Amino acid sequence: MPKIYIKPQNKSFEYIPNKNLLQLLLDNKIFVDNPCNGKGSCGKCRIRLIEGNLPDISETEAKLLKKKEIASGIRLSCFVMPQEDISIEILQKEGKHEILTTGYMPKFKFNPLIHKKVFEIEKPTLKNQSSFEDSICSTFDIKKFDWSLLQQHEFITGKVTGVFNGKKLIGIEPCDTTNILYGVAVDIGTTTVVTALIDMKTGKELATASMINAQKNFGLDVLTRITYELEHPECAKENLQNAIVNSINEMIGDICNKAKVDRRNIYEISVAANCTMMHFLLGIDATSIGMSPYAPIFIKSKNILAKDIGLKAAPGARLYCLPSVSAYIGADIVAGAYVCQLHKAKENILFIDIGTNGEIVLSNHGKLLSCSCAAGPALEGMNISSGMRAAEGAIEDVRITETGIEVEVIAHQKPIGLCGSGILAVVKELLRVGLVKKDGAFIKKEKLEESDYRYNMIQLDGKKRQFILKDNPDQILITQADVRQVQLAKGAILSGFYALLKKANIDMSKLDKVVIAGQFGSHLPADSLVGVGILPEEIKDRLVYVGNSSKTGAYMALMSADVKQELEGLAHQIDYMELGASEGYERLFTECLIFPS
Amino acid sequence: MPKIYIKPQNKSFEYIPNKNLLQLLLDNKIFVDNPCNGKGSCGKCRIRLIEGNLPDISETEAKLLKKKEIASGIRLSCFVMPQEDISIEILQKEGKHEILTTGYMPKFKFNPLIHKKVFEIEKPTLKNQSSFEDSICSTFDIKKFDWSLLQQHEFITGKVTGVFNGKKLIGIEPCDTTNILYGVAVDIGTTTVVTALIDMKTGKELATASMINAQKNFGLDVLTRITYELEHPECAKENLQNAIVNSINEMIGDICNKAKVDRRNIYEISVAANCTMMHFLLGIDATSIGMSPYAPIFIKSKNILAKDIGLKAAPGARLYCLPSVSAYIGADIVAGAYVCQLHKAKENILFIDIGTNGEIVLSNHGKLLSCSCAAGPALEGMNISSGMRAAEGAIEDVRITETGIEVEVIAHQKPIGLCGSGILAVVKELLRVGLVKKDGAFIKKEKLEESDYRYNMIQLDGKKRQFILKDNPDQILITQADVRQVQLAKGAILSGFYALLKKANIDMSKLDKVVIAGQFGSHLPADSLVGVGILPEEIKDRLVYVGNSSKTGAYMALMSADVKQELEGLAHQIDYMELGASEGYERLFTECLIFPS
Repeated sequence: MPKIYIKPQNKSFEYIPNKNLLQLLLDNKIFVDNPCNGKGSCGKCRIRLIEGNLPDISETEAKLLKKKEIASGIRLSCFVMPQEDISIEILQKEGKHEILTTGYMPKFKFNPLIHKKVFEIEKPTLKNQSSFEDSICSTFDIKKFDWSLLQQHEFITGKVTGVFNGKKLIGIEPCDTTNILYGVAVDIGTTTVVTALIDMKTGKELATASMINAQKNFGLDVLTRITYELEHPECAKENLQNAIVNSINEMIGDICNKAKVDRRNIYEISVAANCTMMHFLLGIDATSIGMSPYAPIFIKSKNILAKDIGLKAAPGARLYCLPSVSAYIGADIVAGAYVCQLHKAKENILFIDIGTNGEIVLSNHGKLLSCSCAAGPALEGMNISSGMRAAEGAIEDVRITETGIEVEVIAHQKPIGLCGSGILAVVKELLRVGLVKKDGAFIKKEKLEESDYRYNMIQLDGKKRQFILKDNPDQILITQADVRQVQLAKGAILSGFYALLKKANIDMSKLDKVVIAGQFGSHLPADSLVGVGILPEEIKDRLVYVGNSSKTGAYMALMSADVKQELEGLAHQIDYMELGASEGYERLFTECLIFPS
Repeated sequence: MPKIYIKPQNKSFEYIPNKNLLQLLLDNKIFVDNPCNGKGSCGKCRIRLIEGNLPDISETEAKLLKKKEIASGIRLSCFVMPQEDISIEILQKEGKHEILTTGYMPKFKFNPLIHKKVFEIEKPTLKNQSSFEDSICSTFDIKKFDWSLLQQHEFITGKVTGVFNGKKLIGIEPCDTTNILYGVAVDIGTTTVVTALIDMKTGKELATASMINAQKNFGLDVLTRITYELEHPECAKENLQNAIVNSINEMIGDICNKAKVDRRNIYEISVAANCTMMHFLLGIDATSIGMSPYAPIFIKSKNILAKDIGLKAAPGARLYCLPSVSAYIGADIVAGAYVCQLHKAKENILFIDIGTNGEIVLSNHGKLLSCSCAAGPALEGMNISSGMRAAEGAIEDVRITETGIEVEVIAHQKPIGLCGSGILAVVKELLRVGLVKKDGAFIKKEKLEESDYRYNMIQLDGKKRQFILKDNPDQILITQADVRQVQLAKGAILSGFYALLKKANIDMSKLDKVVIAGQFGSHLPADSLVGVGILPEEIKDRLVYVGNSSKTGAYMALMSADVKQELEGLAHQIDYMELGASEGYERLFTECLIFPS
């Protein structure tokens, strides 16, 4: 069989020449960015051929690559079917990602559903041959319990600790183990997953871990993954579930190591995630989320056996999945709304989680209305020429001055691309210095004097204008298409914002607070949000950042049975407005595409 | 690696020379009878060396084999560690076993817990994006159902059939499938397993299958298997469970093939078995059953997900395990007591299931008292020189006459051994013709005249007397030790019989009926039972045979929710008397050892 050598990593593998190169690499667990999931449309899955031959370049592939790139041997891996031994270089650098794990949390009382009690089980005798099951029931004063607990034990007597989930016995441990009680809070984002180990006796966070959602191999956004599911009914549910379950298991291993805790003493895993991620986690078909009328298979919270989906913790450990509102207002948003106590608000608060989907919840003195806007992945650095995720080497802030372009780079590395906040910053600057007009078009280069400091920042690529952030050896640039992507995202979110206010009949002046939630949102300064016009100028000084409220919600649910109950209630309280089905929405969206002047 | 060739079957396998031959054969799924589970005490695991060399014979092995056997190359496979290529012959012939699948059944009303209803699920719309879960709940008018059902479906709408276990939804099927409803009734015996496919719409038995319990590889009786569990804590529970689960899955495949039924339309599997078999089935530790005070892990009935133990049927199919009374009065006996309606009896009935354990239930006008007697495997043809199971070639009846010995052989084959009923028959005959005395000893050969027709029937093996049933080429004989085995069994059962009557204060003359239940019991004619003194002469004309009442009970539970409920009640109603702990039992047992004259 021919072989593929991956040069910098010094890996290699044999292959049967019947798949495209992208597929071969992913099959062999070598990650190549492919936001479009190998559809040949995003142009991201670039590799460089070092040795050997690949079939001739096709027309479409040539369109997606620059001449210079083609000359240096760069190809799109989803287009080429290798047939022989080749050596290649993977061009994306997977740096260490910046993942937010903390944030605002309201005060609340600890009363975890999970708790322990110690009992004394009498030794059976010839006169009293009570079964172990019956002894447990009478000693613990319960009628019954899950039979699978019986699989874990010989007949133990003497001091025995019962682990309870509410009134339900979920674990039996020899001796008194009441001082050992751990739980895990998880936030599953489409892009990143955060896991925290919690000492449930004290509420203390002992350790955290985070990683990129391993489902990235099946597409970078929710819809691409759903499409993957549609196209691979035979294995998709399993693959998607395994990817996330294995990741969580791995992270639990990490945090347990860090904190020197035995994972068999983790009794509950509490998970917040968007509705699609929750479906994938439980191995439940999510395809109906991907098509109108967007009715999911489930939205209710789940409290199930963690081992039933392969999570490794205590044998009887529970998995609690927070409730969702609808296909596009998931448990992550319910968590956020809860953390911000939107249902108890005595003012008008607008809550936004900005990401590939922008979710907005408006609290009108506790009356809750929500919507979801398909912002697209541009704001997370995807589908952008020089875009990348918020990893080391990503430009996260930009300033255009008369003396040149100043950039801030994550971890102070050599810049290799732009992450979401960088893209937003650069578009804001392009608007501010007038290189991009209100309608989103670059100004014509001929309108600038040659002496203008901005003159050299604009380049022509054929007829297309582009902004050069950094030249040679590796260009970082913003094309007209990139600006359009940002414009679509901005239009989507802003129109959602206005639509909700209109529906609730609240004037912007009456909006007391705008809460920015989520992993990504907390990296977006007010200047950028308002500068690009994602949010209107008027509310700039009413912005509040709450960080990863999804994880905070999962933590609170873990630590309190009351919170669990209130979350259920809250999910029911949030009305959902389907923007596409609301009157006049298309016109509003078009108006919102205009950048601020 | 060296190889082992098995001649008659023409099989072979490679092996690493680090295990004894018995283990190597079992590992390679070649069955060798080994009642003592390779402990080197039963002398049953004989093989004949055809080619190659084996290590020299040890003293113990030589004791267990006859000189003639040693001369012809016969060895005990648990004693020898092969080191090189060898060819061997397996000496046991596994014939087709006679397994009883039918029996008496009282009239009862069908109302299975499992039933189906058809519903209409509305298509979601943009105005009503109800999740599938919520649609099911509102359409079916239920509050919740097991989340794992959601894993099985895309969003289906229109006609949908709900499968219910009582009020609990356990299956969702597209279209109207109300006319398809199957179940399986299973009787797991220590030795044999019987499975029947039932059309739950009509109660009709569509097909049956039976096989030897595959746990035989871990010992032939309950205690040997428990010892195996004690000695192999790392794998025994799993091995024992897999053996029985795989067998049931295989049989379900067979009966479904025969009846042309899709196994995914089997919604309940109802199982009766003794308490130890039930523990093994559920993968639950049974070691406490093996030692005083004989307290099992559980006795209550179980109604659980069949797939949780690996049974393959409908995805939500239930496994119903009938309740037990104690470690040694299992669900098979509860089933039998129910089938015989002992709890409703208006007379005094004694119910006996004769097997390796003899279980007795006495109904004193509906008041129930039980005991269990360790009869040992002799009555099932085990631990007997020429013993074998009730398979083709087994002698099942014997008559000693002045003109010779007449035998009846299963399937009219050439006789190769004695099954339980044959052993009982021959002992009865030996007593009748006076070759064995009341105390169980053979009469001395010198007391017989040479002209006596019985003279040549007794042979001396050294100092030991034995009865020759068939000579050359393959001897079939009854040794003094064999008679002692039968005597112990008889003593155990008869003493249990008397102990129960005494405890209930019932005179034998007041006993209205003696019910013989079970696979094995139904092959034991009254003549033999009374002739050997397992039961007293007085009750000979009060014997009733009810066949495999364990399977019948499993069937009735499957077909009726009421029966299930009554079984639970019945199990509670049966008092259990631990013979070993009852006063004067040892003396009674000794008295009961005496054969009738």
